[in-house]
Amino acid sequence: MPLFARDEDAFHGHVNGDKNMPVVGEAAEIFDRVIAMLKKYLESAEDREEKVIDFKEPREIDQIMHRCGCDLSLEDGKRVGAEAIISACAATLRLSARTGHPQFFNTLFGRSDICGVVGEMLTVACNTSAYTFEIAPVFVMVEASVIDKTVQLLGFEPGTSEGLFVPGGSIANLYGLQLARFFKLPEVKHKGIYAIKGALVGYCSEASHYSYKKAAHLMGIGEDNIKEIAIDGRGKMVVDELTKRIEDDIAAGLQPFFVGATAGTTVWGSFDELTSLRAVCDKYGLWLHVDAAWGGAALLASTVTRDRLLRGVEKVDSFCWNPHKMVGVPLQCSMIVHRKGRGLLHSCNGTQAPYLFQKEKLFGEMDRGDWTIQCGRRPDAFKIWLAWKHIGDEALGRRVEWAIELSRYAAEIINTSTGRFCGRFELHHEPEYANVCFWYLPLSLKHLKPATGLLTQEEAAALSQVIPYCKSRMQELGLAMITFTGEYNFFRWTFANPRSVTREDVVAVLKDIDVVGCHFVPTN
Amino acid sequence: MPLFARDEDAFHGHVNGDKNMPVVGEAAEIFDRVIAMLKKYLESAEDREEKVIDFKEPREIDQIMHRCGCDLSLEDGKRVGAEAIISACAATLRLSARTGHPQFFNTLFGRSDICGVVGEMLTVACNTSAYTFEIAPVFVMVEASVIDKTVQLLGFEPGTSEGLFVPGGSIANLYGLQLARFFKLPEVKHKGIYAIKGALVGYCSEASHYSYKKAAHLMGIGEDNIKEIAIDGRGKMVVDELTKRIEDDIAAGLQPFFVGATAGTTVWGSFDELTSLRAVCDKYGLWLHVDAAWGGAALLASTVTRDRLLRGVEKVDSFCWNPHKMVGVPLQCSMIVHRKGRGLLHSCNGTQAPYLFQKEKLFGEMDRGDWTIQCGRRPDAFKIWLAWKHIGDEALGRRVEWAIELSRYAAEIINTSTGRFCGRFELHHEPEYANVCFWYLPLSLKHLKPATGLLTQEEAAALSQVIPYCKSRMQELGLAMITFTGEYNFFRWTFANPRSVTREDVVAVLKDIDVVGCHFVPTN
Repeated sequence: MPLFARDEDAFHGHVNGDKNMPVVGEAAEIFDRVIAMLKKYLESAEDREEKVIDFKEPREIDQIMHRCGCDLSLEDGKRVGAEAIISACAATLRLSARTGHPQFFNTLFGRSDICGVVGEMLTVACNTSAYTFEIAPVFVMVEASVIDKTVQLLGFEPGTSEGLFVPGGSIANLYGLQLARFFKLPEVKHKGIYAIKGALVGYCSEASHYSYKKAAHLMGIGEDNIKEIAIDGRGKMVVDELTKRIEDDIAAGLQPFFVGATAGTTVWGSFDELTSLRAVCDKYGLWLHVDAAWGGAALLASTVTRDRLLRGVEKVDSFCWNPHKMVGVPLQCSMIVHRKGRGLLHSCNGTQAPYLFQKEKLFGEMDRGDWTIQCGRRPDAFKIWLAWKHIGDEALGRRVEWAIELSRYAAEIINTSTGRFCGRFELHHEPEYANVCFWYLPLSLKHLKPATGLLTQEEAAALSQVIPYCKSRMQELGLAMITFTGEYNFFRWTFANPRSVTREDVVAVLKDIDVVGCHFVPTN
Repeated sequence: MPLFARDEDAFHGHVNGDKNMPVVGEAAEIFDRVIAMLKKYLESAEDREEKVIDFKEPREIDQIMHRCGCDLSLEDGKRVGAEAIISACAATLRLSARTGHPQFFNTLFGRSDICGVVGEMLTVACNTSAYTFEIAPVFVMVEASVIDKTVQLLGFEPGTSEGLFVPGGSIANLYGLQLARFFKLPEVKHKGIYAIKGALVGYCSEASHYSYKKAAHLMGIGEDNIKEIAIDGRGKMVVDELTKRIEDDIAAGLQPFFVGATAGTTVWGSFDELTSLRAVCDKYGLWLHVDAAWGGAALLASTVTRDRLLRGVEKVDSFCWNPHKMVGVPLQCSMIVHRKGRGLLHSCNGTQAPYLFQKEKLFGEMDRGDWTIQCGRRPDAFKIWLAWKHIGDEALGRRVEWAIELSRYAAEIINTSTGRFCGRFELHHEPEYANVCFWYLPLSLKHLKPATGLLTQEEAAALSQVIPYCKSRMQELGLAMITFTGEYNFFRWTFANPRSVTREDVVAVLKDIDVVGCHFVPTN
């Protein structure tokens, strides 16, 4: 079709669909050169001489893209050529944080395994949606397989369990809340919350992920009706406090329905005690969901570790896990699994759209699309399935153990840091999983003891400047990236990429912080 | 680290991060061979001699994967080698529907452009999250750029408009409802719906996408409180009926707050009249959202087409569009844009998580993560930005026009099908956009006139079997895939892949239906 002669150039040189014609011309060049670039990027993931980020300010990024011949703005609507596209891709790779770098610790995800990468790239080329068997048969079956495996690891009863891949842990927690509400009050589906007397209330801990609050707003429950229960010194929800709040709320005419536990809190990496929470939930008839987005990887660890962290998980009602954290597959790879009866997801979310989920079609009963709150849905299960097949349970388990070992090693150095560094490090709490929270005390504040909590207002104000300062300088220098938060701003160091990180990295990072920060003097 | 000696093999041969060491061994082989496979797959996208799907039953798929040495089940937890992985990838490619095939018409998405594909592959290799500038600076800026362009195309006021990429059109419609509720009743955020007197009610048409209903359940509003307004003979919401329902609901003490219009309905491809709906919404103080997941591409069309389909779009309050439909980038690529003030998304969805959105960090004000209901979020804007840069406004516009032209051409042949085929085709309605809805009448039912709606119960039962029969046989043969739905089951044929489809394809598909179906005799 000559209509697209120029347009067709964008993909290949021919316009009539000649059989077996290779990708030629501009399109081939773009594909080959960008793929070669990606391969080089992936193979240099462990190169410690690469900066973690080649940090540039927004206006510099604007200029760089302009120099590539590919301005960020789309305003003029003009097309650019292959060279500009390829340069823009190169610049984007260079300017983004190298999340696979062994010294990238900023988030709960990191480097992907080769099968995670190629599995995801295959789904990109396939460009299909996981909603129906007819267009994505293997992806639909693979999703069921990964869910089955997770059900097995959880110790759920297979006959009453089911699950789905969803776009992120926050959405998985939203599904948990939604399933809990529907299970108790199916009439909400048609009539809304108006059908119910007494406000619904749920509980999580003050260390829980913010997604419970976001979900509460979205669901019309309201953030105030997801109550934050205090945590103890190990970061775990105080069960007595939970019981008290439930009883108070019942006495006040409210309707408790949900407890959102956490297995691996975002900051501390703490694990709520699921067995105790189960007992409370049983007593009051509440749904017990566990946000194991980060801690779910402990399912793969040794029996000892698993029992220490996840005891009682086989009795929770629903479970969220992000294998893109720690396990090594690209974002997003998140699942919700529950054990409250097969068909519950479908009854809860189904609307039986007749244009998509026809009863008359071949193997329509395999479709999972109507179990979801989405319509089109990426086949996120494929990459974890492929990576899991390639790595196997045992090696995955070793990674989790190594992440825990790294965090213990870091804590040990921090605890014995006096005299080894110019400044001093102080641990926030002993790590339970793969999070290490710590302060850095430069020379000017070396005498402070932040872990005691006994700082004057001036001391607190001074200390709060230290980590943001260190972080910004390290970012500008391309050194390790670690996030910070909490009392007086502490570093939260997470080992989400155990594949690549060594004990030497741990020491190197602490040394870099010391070099960057030891002479820092806070301003008033 | 010898700990991972075997595990490390999964990615490359070395264990100490030697600089510039190439990807070697098993990992390199997997990468190179799967990428070569994907390239071949992409370059043969237009090969009409390929089956649209190599259809197999689930038990056959099980056997094929077994023969690849890569059982679908993960139960035994054992790792498999590179050959099994590569074979499994090849089988997955072969067994999935070729959504880029010129005769794949099953869904509202199809083939991707090269820059859509490589852009998405780049984000896979980068493996970052669009939530913060510090780890994804280019992706954050690119997202803003694509939203700005869309705001420009919509004719929204830039100073008061903003938007986000979200995982799918259903979620974008959910954002529309959520923004509407928050704008009117911000107290819901903290107190829930309990803070309000009178049930919230919204309206869409009976031809709207099911996501409004799913969202209503999720949001605690209830499906019954999203009321379906009748459509006229062109598939458009009857505005007088809407007005009447709003007045009745107000009289009944309910609280109307939302109208969900559709630009390009899923089945008919109809466009609601935005100007009339705006007047109604203004009169009663309602938020006007438009689900243009499918029809949003008309923004790129000629002025005449745009005015015909989207007149008044500059006055809607929020707008959902999936560029993965028609524009040619991989799933998912969906956006929500609104014009009700910058900062609204953040006030609505924000929880200011202190571990992620620190005020002290460099350029933290660029972060968009707290505007969303997610936490981690794929940088879905990059692929459309790259493709848009490469293709340009003009060629994108020609595609949309061509899709419309193809649908007119198909309608013309259908309308003149008597005598040209063994059976007969009958049009459901004249196409307005890129959807063609039609029945096929085999010899045994050639006398029926389904478009009149005047079929006896027996005739209806007989006719309802025809399209499912044709569809299944065509699927087994690897011929064109087209979905079906509606009265007596009609085919819904959509031109979501205008890049590749020719007039010859249109004729070929109708011929194939005729060959497969002409001798079909319905059972009683």
